[in-house]
Amino acid sequence: MKAEIITIGDEILIGQIVDTNSAFISKELNKIGVEVVQISSVSDARNHILEALKEAEGRADILIITGGLGPTKDDITKHTLAEYFDDTLVTNESVLKHVEALFKKYITTPISDLNRQQALVLSTAHVLHNNYGTAPGMWIQRNGKVVISMPGVPFEMKQLMKNEVLPRIQKDFKLPFIIHKTVMTYGLGESAIAEKIEDWEENLPKHIKLAYLPNLGRVRLRLSTKGWDKNELENQIDYQIQKLYSLIGDIIVGLEESEAIEVVLGRKLKERNVSLALAESCTGGKLAEHLTSIPGASAYFKGGVVSYATHSKVSVLGVNQSLINEHSVVSAQVVEQMALGVQKIMKTDYAIATTGNAGPTKGDSDAEIGTVFIGIATPKRVYSEKFNLGNHRVRVVQKAVNKAMEMLLREISKN
Amino acid sequence: MKAEIITIGDEILIGQIVDTNSAFISKELNKIGVEVVQISSVSDARNHILEALKEAEGRADILIITGGLGPTKDDITKHTLAEYFDDTLVTNESVLKHVEALFKKYITTPISDLNRQQALVLSTAHVLHNNYGTAPGMWIQRNGKVVISMPGVPFEMKQLMKNEVLPRIQKDFKLPFIIHKTVMTYGLGESAIAEKIEDWEENLPKHIKLAYLPNLGRVRLRLSTKGWDKNELENQIDYQIQKLYSLIGDIIVGLEESEAIEVVLGRKLKERNVSLALAESCTGGKLAEHLTSIPGASAYFKGGVVSYATHSKVSVLGVNQSLINEHSVVSAQVVEQMALGVQKIMKTDYAIATTGNAGPTKGDSDAEIGTVFIGIATPKRVYSEKFNLGNHRVRVVQKAVNKAMEMLLREISKN
Repeated sequence: MKAEIITIGDEILIGQIVDTNSAFISKELNKIGVEVVQISSVSDARNHILEALKEAEGRADILIITGGLGPTKDDITKHTLAEYFDDTLVTNESVLKHVEALFKKYITTPISDLNRQQALVLSTAHVLHNNYGTAPGMWIQRNGKVVISMPGVPFEMKQLMKNEVLPRIQKDFKLPFIIHKTVMTYGLGESAIAEKIEDWEENLPKHIKLAYLPNLGRVRLRLSTKGWDKNELENQIDYQIQKLYSLIGDIIVGLEESEAIEVVLGRKLKERNVSLALAESCTGGKLAEHLTSIPGASAYFKGGVVSYATHSKVSVLGVNQSLINEHSVVSAQVVEQMALGVQKIMKTDYAIATTGNAGPTKGDSDAEIGTVFIGIATPKRVYSEKFNLGNHRVRVVQKAVNKAMEMLLREISKN
Repeated sequence: MKAEIITIGDEILIGQIVDTNSAFISKELNKIGVEVVQISSVSDARNHILEALKEAEGRADILIITGGLGPTKDDITKHTLAEYFDDTLVTNESVLKHVEALFKKYITTPISDLNRQQALVLSTAHVLHNNYGTAPGMWIQRNGKVVISMPGVPFEMKQLMKNEVLPRIQKDFKLPFIIHKTVMTYGLGESAIAEKIEDWEENLPKHIKLAYLPNLGRVRLRLSTKGWDKNELENQIDYQIQKLYSLIGDIIVGLEESEAIEVVLGRKLKERNVSLALAESCTGGKLAEHLTSIPGASAYFKGGVVSYATHSKVSVLGVNQSLINEHSVVSAQVVEQMALGVQKIMKTDYAIATTGNAGPTKGDSDAEIGTVFIGIATPKRVYSEKFNLGNHRVRVVQKAVNKAMEMLLREISKN
């Protein structure tokens, strides 16, 4: 079962927005055994949409289309789909009632004909109900192919995918299992890894595919396969991962969690009923932002200090000025005092502190650009590690955030 | 002059990564007058890449391809391009020297044949030098069309675009100007706006295109045009925007800045030589992260407190416990004391504070989900505003961050 995604809207083609919808849709389809063979972004132009539909129908069984369903003149997806399927648009009474109710509840201006036209759907379409907006989804079946149209607003689309599209695909089609597992390595480049695992790679069964994904100082090795017996597939992948461990176990950090590290970290902190505070210098609040992106974070995350100016490290966190003078503000000594300081003022069990120079120019310290110290305070001790994270500001900060969460995860996993 | 972008790599099609490269490339091409007609993501499969190249060549003059240039077996872009152009791969001595130098400087493992093969390029290609990585870019010209291949690693691709690809396109082609201006409105839905400006929209000159972009409680109206006389085009767009002001001036916030608000805010703070601190509750560090994402932010941003737990508002920021008991932690009184508290401990001219309930469940307060108070402390006074930002956690936080930056921008723009 193959799918293609077509996103409609000039805002993607002029770079005004990043298309995050397609990644979400692809991931969800993969989970239920549907392979995405192409993603295309096309403009709000009739000819172009018709051409994209035709090309995609030649390659895939399921076409997922997002965007172009608004009430205004620049939105032409619905009319173009009607033309493509030689169909007409008819008012769906249940959608009309929903649109009217939304207006009554949330919108101060009176409902207009343009709004009412949101209830127009292809006469042959099965309507997919959109709880959060006025544009309904549509499921259109023809010659064994399915075309699904959804609004481009991400949270409306996500809700439609989860509640309507995915269950219906699973109901209507017999789907195989697609398994991806990703091994995370650290310390060797992709070509050096490729040489070490050359024989293993040569001898991989044909239905298992290997990909190298280098990113932020790490290479991830993704193994993918597809088939009908989930257990058997999992066993085969696990068997190959065991072999990988025997070849390059020294550089394997673990398997990529399907959950983000902040989710895992949050769960472990909660399970252990311990609390966390942060003192951030070079990471500038990004670590706090990651941790608080998880609903319920207030159960373990008590707060943090973003200590950007040197004087705030002294006045707020209680770092000794003499220590800063002696070792500089980017040092193991200072980061450890920062961790202890915030642990004390926030009254927490654990604390993380960061200090470093993210570039592009040197700041309050002579430290090389990319030098970052991360400190961990526990109920029993404090310690720190020094990293060199390259010379690209955004990447230095992101790598430091990852390192900090990994250090804490390692620490609390001990208990 | 029309372009298409083809991104190669299974990681996009399985949703493991979001394709941010295409938005960057599209935006940059638009700036120099090249229109992007389609973006396609295809898998690392020979047939599929060949088909995508052929389809794109039928629609566009310039094809930009990213990805699939690594040293490992799963990367097949170079070989597939050689097949498509009936060309052979030859070693480029200058790239080889660069790869050898990179290994000598940064990589601890010895250079291998796989790494040396990174210097293989199509014999007819003009090589685009990649400062940051081992995979060179290539510029291939045939039958009046140009195919450009670049690595998929974002910062390598960006550097190649800016230093090599864009200047070369500008040198080789006579390009028109593409102008986009986006008017930001607040307070009316897109259909209500559409009705108010119906006559104006009907009478827009054919070469000016209008798009409605609803997002986060706002509708943006984008006017786009293309032509050879930049001043004339700007004048025509500005004239239409003036007309828009006369129709819906009451809901227009302004033009979308080509710069992000944090950049504008940073510049204004720096010009006025004033400093800023933050006390964040519901925004959890995201405001600090936005402000510190700007290089040189330490000139005005002194630090912040992420005050997630109620007790830290009292112990660190000095909010009166009695005030919290009386008005709840989500209140104008508390947010104003938070702003004054952090202004004092960070010794700054201005401070912003946030408190609210982002959901999904109610926290330490009975406030409705989506209720957010934002406080601003200035050298002379403190004040706050109350907002209701909906019931979607991520969106509540993002809207609160935007509101906070807008409030401060309005405040400091007075002086």
